[in-house]
Amino acid sequence: MLKVGVIGCGGMGRDHIKRLTNKIQGAEVVAVSDVMEESAKEAAKICNARVYTNELELIADPEVEAVFIVSPGFAHTEPLLAAIEAGKRVFCEKPLATTAADCLKVVNAEVAAGKHLIQTGFMRRYDKGYMQVKEALDSGNYGEPLMLHCTHRNPEVGTNYNTPMAVHDTAIHEIDVLHWLVDDEYESAQVIMPRITKYSHSELNDPQIMLLRTKKGVCIDVEVFVNCKFGYDINCEVVCEDGAIKMPEPAYPYIRKDARLSTTIDTDCFVRFKDAYDVEVQDWVDKAGEEVISGPTAWDGYLAAVTADALVKAQESGKIEPIITEVEKPDFYK
Amino acid sequence: MLKVGVIGCGGMGRDHIKRLTNKIQGAEVVAVSDVMEESAKEAAKICNARVYTNELELIADPEVEAVFIVSPGFAHTEPLLAAIEAGKRVFCEKPLATTAADCLKVVNAEVAAGKHLIQTGFMRRYDKGYMQVKEALDSGNYGEPLMLHCTHRNPEVGTNYNTPMAVHDTAIHEIDVLHWLVDDEYESAQVIMPRITKYSHSELNDPQIMLLRTKKGVCIDVEVFVNCKFGYDINCEVVCEDGAIKMPEPAYPYIRKDARLSTTIDTDCFVRFKDAYDVEVQDWVDKAGEEVISGPTAWDGYLAAVTADALVKAQESGKIEPIITEVEKPDFYK
Amino acid sequence: MLKVGVIGCGGMGRDHIKRLTNKIQGAEVVAVSDVMEESAKEAAKICNARVYTNELELIADPEVEAVFIVSPGFAHTEPLLAAIEAGKRVFCEKPLATTAADCLKVVNAEVAAGKHLIQTGFMRRYDKGYMQVKEALDSGNYGEPLMLHCTHRNPEVGTNYNTPMAVHDTAIHEIDVLHWLVDDEYESAQVIMPRITKYSHSELNDPQIMLLRTKKGVCIDVEVFVNCKFGYDINCEVVCEDGAIKMPEPAYPYIRKDARLSTTIDTDCFVRFKDAYDVEVQDWVDKAGEEVISGPTAWDGYLAAVTADALVKAQESGKIEPIITEVEKPDFYK
Amino acid sequence: MLKVGVIGCGGMGRDHIKRLTNKIQGAEVVAVSDVMEESAKEAAKICNARVYTNELELIADPEVEAVFIVSPGFAHTEPLLAAIEAGKRVFCEKPLATTAADCLKVVNAEVAAGKHLIQTGFMRRYDKGYMQVKEALDSGNYGEPLMLHCTHRNPEVGTNYNTPMAVHDTAIHEIDVLHWLVDDEYESAQVIMPRITKYSHSELNDPQIMLLRTKKGVCIDVEVFVNCKFGYDINCEVVCEDGAIKMPEPAYPYIRKDARLSTTIDTDCFVRFKDAYDVEVQDWVDKAGEEVISGPTAWDGYLAAVTADALVKAQESGKIEPIITEVEKPDFYK
Repeated sequence: MLKVGVIGCGGMGRDHIKRLTNKIQGAEVVAVSDVMEESAKEAAKICNARVYTNELELIADPEVEAVFIVSPGFAHTEPLLAAIEAGKRVFCEKPLATTAADCLKVVNAEVAAGKHLIQTGFMRRYDKGYMQVKEALDSGNYGEPLMLHCTHRNPEVGTNYNTPMAVHDTAIHEIDVLHWLVDDEYESAQVIMPRITKYSHSELNDPQIMLLRTKKGVCIDVEVFVNCKFGYDINCEVVCEDGAIKMPEPAYPYIRKDARLSTTIDTDCFVRFKDAYDVEVQDWVDKAGEEVISGPTAWDGYLAAVTADALVKAQESGKIEPIITEVEKPDFYK
Repeated sequence: MLKVGVIGCGGMGRDHIKRLTNKIQGAEVVAVSDVMEESAKEAAKICNARVYTNELELIADPEVEAVFIVSPGFAHTEPLLAAIEAGKRVFCEKPLATTAADCLKVVNAEVAAGKHLIQTGFMRRYDKGYMQVKEALDSGNYGEPLMLHCTHRNPEVGTNYNTPMAVHDTAIHEIDVLHWLVDDEYESAQVIMPRITKYSHSELNDPQIMLLRTKKGVCIDVEVFVNCKFGYDINCEVVCEDGAIKMPEPAYPYIRKDARLSTTIDTDCFVRFKDAYDVEVQDWVDKAGEEVISGPTAWDGYLAAVTADALVKAQESGKIEPIITEVEKPDFYK
Repeated sequence: MLKVGVIGCGGMGRDHIKRLTNKIQGAEVVAVSDVMEESAKEAAKICNARVYTNELELIADPEVEAVFIVSPGFAHTEPLLAAIEAGKRVFCEKPLATTAADCLKVVNAEVAAGKHLIQTGFMRRYDKGYMQVKEALDSGNYGEPLMLHCTHRNPEVGTNYNTPMAVHDTAIHEIDVLHWLVDDEYESAQVIMPRITKYSHSELNDPQIMLLRTKKGVCIDVEVFVNCKFGYDINCEVVCEDGAIKMPEPAYPYIRKDARLSTTIDTDCFVRFKDAYDVEVQDWVDKAGEEVISGPTAWDGYLAAVTADALVKAQESGKIEPIITEVEKPDFYK
Repeated sequence: MLKVGVIGCGGMGRDHIKRLTNKIQGAEVVAVSDVMEESAKEAAKICNARVYTNELELIADPEVEAVFIVSPGFAHTEPLLAAIEAGKRVFCEKPLATTAADCLKVVNAEVAAGKHLIQTGFMRRYDKGYMQVKEALDSGNYGEPLMLHCTHRNPEVGTNYNTPMAVHDTAIHEIDVLHWLVDDEYESAQVIMPRITKYSHSELNDPQIMLLRTKKGVCIDVEVFVNCKFGYDINCEVVCEDGAIKMPEPAYPYIRKDARLSTTIDTDCFVRFKDAYDVEVQDWVDKAGEEVISGPTAWDGYLAAVTADALVKAQESGKIEPIITEVEKPDFYK
């Protein structure tokens, strides 16, 4: 039984506490922390856990074997470094940190510690559809991947959602999952700004088309359309030398009614990727004994930050921007 | 240029006159007849044709090389026999005749004449979907057919439509096309009466499930549902020893809107089978020179009548009723 | 933590032991039994459980709170009655018992005990596809169900599989899930025997079409084809007054290759319904505290036996056979 | 009966002669010409036409009412100008001419003549799928188009096919049909060169992704992949403010076999667009009486040339290249 301390007791934090308590085998939440004491206390009721308002004290709690970070992104670096120092396994919701520099600090600390401790919370790698596509790609039946055509569509966003958030909050998931899918890293980024939908506002170019090129030359296009109105619609087609592989859409009944044959499109990302969250956290728990991270690592968190920075730069410049990591991928992560 | 005389100038008659005049290559309507002189005159304007009120005179017209019968079903036998006697090619809209006895008279007359003259107007054999299924079956890739699952769904019918019409007006198309598809003849019929839809009325059991067995043992189920509300929806799946073949539905765009991914279901049989009518009539015209009937023959018209009679009997008896032709299939039709 | 004793340590038994041990939240296998001591010992290693060769001793074990019966069907009645007497919750793999008479004994015992103890292991009610169809039906958007078109196709069976097994081992799943889907009970059964596939043998009519009518008049056809070669292919379409609902097929990538656009058909029933087994057992564990059975009950097990008997009789008679329970459904199960 | 003279008797020329002779209503080929007398004589047999080796003589032939140009692209300008001068209706297979300058000459000549004479042979506008998408767009139900995602995939090309031909011979069809679809003109072009498939050769970057922006800001991506191996696969999705519209793929039976559910992908562009060629030519014939061109005009031919030039420049520069016509669209074409 892995004894877990959860940092961050907002909505997503409570969801993870419920997941760890009710769905996941082999884990137990023994401590929670939040800067808002009331939130922490409320969350603690779900799992009968000790309450902290200081996350460092939670990390130091000797009963806490592993740390689950669900606090706001800007607050990740300090607990990450503290957990590494304490030698405790970490699940850190995305983003790893809000700047590439901070992500690199975490990477360097983990490498220095010499122990695989940190999993970054990009859940799509655990989605059945992406896993099926990955399996097909890895089968060797389709040759090398050449192009990926993707969409990340969302019914609508609030008025506080602005142009760079299309990268940081939305495309960030494709950034992680796609390079994993083709087992490659990114080389350059470009963003194309089509005509803006009438449902957007002055601070948001919506939709956008994000173009990524990998080091092996795979070209990726991602339509990011966050006010598409019709649904939460994630698509991914991988075109290879010997065939093309399209990720299936979630299965719902086919309905004949009113001269239409139709099926449901999800509208909520938490419904669409519900199972992926469960599988992701279960995998993190299952691999604790082996001291292995089989999901996204701190390095993947750093790569995502570097790539996101290039995309935001490309949003502004309209040009093809290089994607350059400050260091080569450490052998530690290979 | 095949010179055609058209008997029957109602809606369907005028449709065929327009088709022969504007769409079909190699045919020309030179005469039309209708017992209602006004109708005939109106139709004649479409094609600049001579007008008759007596169909026998039209058949006797020396310029008329071929006869197109679109009058009501009960009035088919006399002109059919007259045309055979005159040695003129005939296209006769379904049904060939309204009783099996009359159909057999026509068959006997054609056999006696020793010339392939009569095509019965079952257009589904000319539908692209059925032809594709037929081609797959005939490829030999799927082994012998064992079962057919079919639907014949219609949005709604008038209050004059009653239980036996589900056979005579609706399933009659499946009766013809399915035995052709599997190159077989029928042996027995059964009709199952499910719970009746709230949209039906006291004279109509709707839906019905019609079961047919062929001489080779192929078992066919046809859902006939004429007040299904949602569309004109024709389906056909052939399950074989080495695979199953499903006829495609007509292709319409896939629309994402309002949390649904949907496509159109036709609602009108004349839209659904529009192309089939054109191909059917063109084929009848094209084969005139060879004096060959490659579509449904008079024998097929007779088979349809015998099968329909058994189905109507089965509607009443609730039992498995044999389907027996009075004579064996003449070599003439093999 | 529900302490479970498992009776029957064959392949399926060990699968359930692994499931209860590794996947299910809130349960623990504390005892196992098998008439083959070696099997029991082998299975006990999975979960560190006590070993019995006498199932009644396992049931009597005071630590055992709930009993999981996975022994062969003919051996279910005795432990079922013993567990009821002991007041212990039971999950009994299908069939409840091999005769309707034995099933009724179990029903009577449970009713007499006055406590909801027994869940019968029909897992399809826990399949996502069937649950989605059920949800659509229960939404009221589609009116009353009128017809169900179903297939139960299996790639191939061994030579020991004979005609009645098409009911007992195969259609038995449809028997349970379909009446639940439409919230109804069966009234009569008929079996149609199409031409036999070349892949069958002298003791097996394959395929078969099984027809069931419910008390409300819903007509169901189930194609049972156990040597269809191409896959394990479960389909279910419910045609209602205001629309038709088709259960989705499991989602796999769409592949473009060699002039085909294709997706995978499962070939293994345990892959197809893998998730359903997990959800089913989790639900049985979850409801232990409330002393509620929300899955198939002993009454459902009895209904399945009565219906299967009528279908086997109909296989032989070729007639429509009534389906009659010896007693009315007890209020206890309503 | 429109009396047509056909210039160019190669394979495509003979196809059009057969089409005009056997399929099209209201037209008749009365003259053919080819610089190779043998070719012209061979083609003339199809339709019993007069033979010319000089196309200008054919145009001058008083019986010739309309001219059909199917000679090689580089040889189009002279007969186009001659036909305009003669006031004769023209169908000119794509490209209108091989340089934008020559296309503009033709445009200017037609405008000067003040009569709508020239239709350019881009047949996709007559494809059922594109027409359905157009109809949906024009319905107003989906708001303004924002993005188009397209593929133009071809099984394989010969070794003489080089990088610029991906524009001139392949994407040229998208160039025409897409701006018509969204009723807009192009503003800029970019070409992205992904990793090259192992099936390509040193003179050909295959695949390519072509990006076009329209004046209203619609952003289009077209995957051009001419050695994709798996089929001739044309896709087009239009993403609008209020929904997305995907063109259907051609309908073929769904086959269950060998654990796959599959349907056919075309492999031949002439099969894929067979009907479109027929509809296109029929429309050109039908509109002769009204002296109207409802298909692509000479202006569309000019636009295609200007756009193709920008794309070829973009292939070389790797940059976003402007697409600028030398003159504004004449009112004559509005």
